[in-house]
Amino acid sequence: MLPDRFFFDALADAAKAETLPRFRTGLSVVNKIEGGFDPVTEGDRAAETAIRALIEERFPDHGILGEEHENIGLDREHIWVIDPIDGTRAFISGLPVWGTLIGFQSNGRATMGLMDQPFIGERYFADGERSWYAGPDGERQIQVRDCGSLSDAILFTTSPHIFTGEAANRYRAVEGRVQLFRYGCDCYAYALLASGHVDLVVESSLKPYDIGALIPLIEQAGGVITTWDGGRPEQGGNIVAAGSPTVHAQALALLSGL
Amino acid sequence: MLPDRFFFDALADAAKAETLPRFRTGLSVVNKIEGGFDPVTEGDRAAETAIRALIEERFPDHGILGEEHENIGLDREHIWVIDPIDGTRAFISGLPVWGTLIGFQSNGRATMGLMDQPFIGERYFADGERSWYAGPDGERQIQVRDCGSLSDAILFTTSPHIFTGEAANRYRAVEGRVQLFRYGCDCYAYALLASGHVDLVVESSLKPYDIGALIPLIEQAGGVITTWDGGRPEQGGNIVAAGSPTVHAQALALLSGL
Repeated sequence: MLPDRFFFDALADAAKAETLPRFRTGLSVVNKIEGGFDPVTEGDRAAETAIRALIEERFPDHGILGEEHENIGLDREHIWVIDPIDGTRAFISGLPVWGTLIGFQSNGRATMGLMDQPFIGERYFADGERSWYAGPDGERQIQVRDCGSLSDAILFTTSPHIFTGEAANRYRAVEGRVQLFRYGCDCYAYALLASGHVDLVVESSLKPYDIGALIPLIEQAGGVITTWDGGRPEQGGNIVAAGSPTVHAQALALLSGL
Repeated sequence: MLPDRFFFDALADAAKAETLPRFRTGLSVVNKIEGGFDPVTEGDRAAETAIRALIEERFPDHGILGEEHENIGLDREHIWVIDPIDGTRAFISGLPVWGTLIGFQSNGRATMGLMDQPFIGERYFADGERSWYAGPDGERQIQVRDCGSLSDAILFTTSPHIFTGEAANRYRAVEGRVQLFRYGCDCYAYALLASGHVDLVVESSLKPYDIGALIPLIEQAGGVITTWDGGRPEQGGNIVAAGSPTVHAQALALLSGL
């Protein structure tokens, strides 16, 4: 039996109960570190514990790959891929563009995924065939847009500082060719891509749990997401996601170094 | 007679009625430009028109300085300073960190101000004495925090690319000394500073309407906001805002070039 939307919602709600009360608690980073009380780490751990408890009860034969706790059964047919708070810098800064990421893989392929931003009240979900949005302005199926070509694209990345060495040169080549670029969005950038508001996301050094939930969200909205050498993105690494095959190919030509 | 909170709310609501329906309309930047239909510019103009109509009806003897329409009576005692959509890149990208800025000055001094983010439903308001927040998690008075020193600060700026020449060197000197820095927030960064979530905002080349509403929000929350040479910020230019006099002085020492 495969999970359904209601189960994903239950997981996101359980995570929200742990993350949201710790958001904007007003403690400075320094206080958190010195006092040993760190709302991000606490929220991360508590949310992942809550998610795992529900999965283990309902799907005891599934594996779990999470950011905060030990991995379980990564050789199993079905695997959950969890990042309870993606965008910890945003979380620390009071900026509501962090998200809870819950992905589902079968036989190594990402098939379902959810991204939740509980402060704004936005939830993005890929059900295995289509991608959906629910937020302050209603619920609807979402689709990427095709901006035409790289020179017309809006590009997002978390920060120019995430790229080093040759990867920085390749990233800058892309940045120099787009219509508009913007920094600082983490998972939220992929949600904007899936819903057709932006055209390209380029990032490096991602972990599997950073991207697992976002792959189906992009693909089932009609987008393309791969590594910089054009391979499957499930293992993370350097990632490029686009709203159309053309824009993806143009970015890939600059990023692959071939 | 001076304006009250209810009047500011009426202005923000009138702006919201023009901006929010044009947010996330799903048209690409290219379509907007080629088709002559630009929701940001349209929203900007329509919102400012709506705000001006209310001001001119209620306070016909006040001056108005706005981004989109002709300035009126800048030599008058009371002046309204309006930016209907601050953060147009965020607006274009579907990212809800843009805001409507409505400031009020008496005798050249910013005394009241409002920042509204209608998609999230957050409103920040300085009433002449104190700063207030209303949002998804309730309403409350807000205050800056004192993180202690520059090395413990969270810094925001819109983009490292806004700084050129010697200003870029000075900005980088600050960025190199803080605990954490983040790009891409426009007016939202000042709201986070006023509510004690971040510690420092550094920007350059601001117009008076970019900052007019934000000055009282920072000052009446206990913060410090000046130009890079320590002067009053009402005319815009290079701006530094901090949650404490110590952090402000440390940043100013690096930014002023003295």
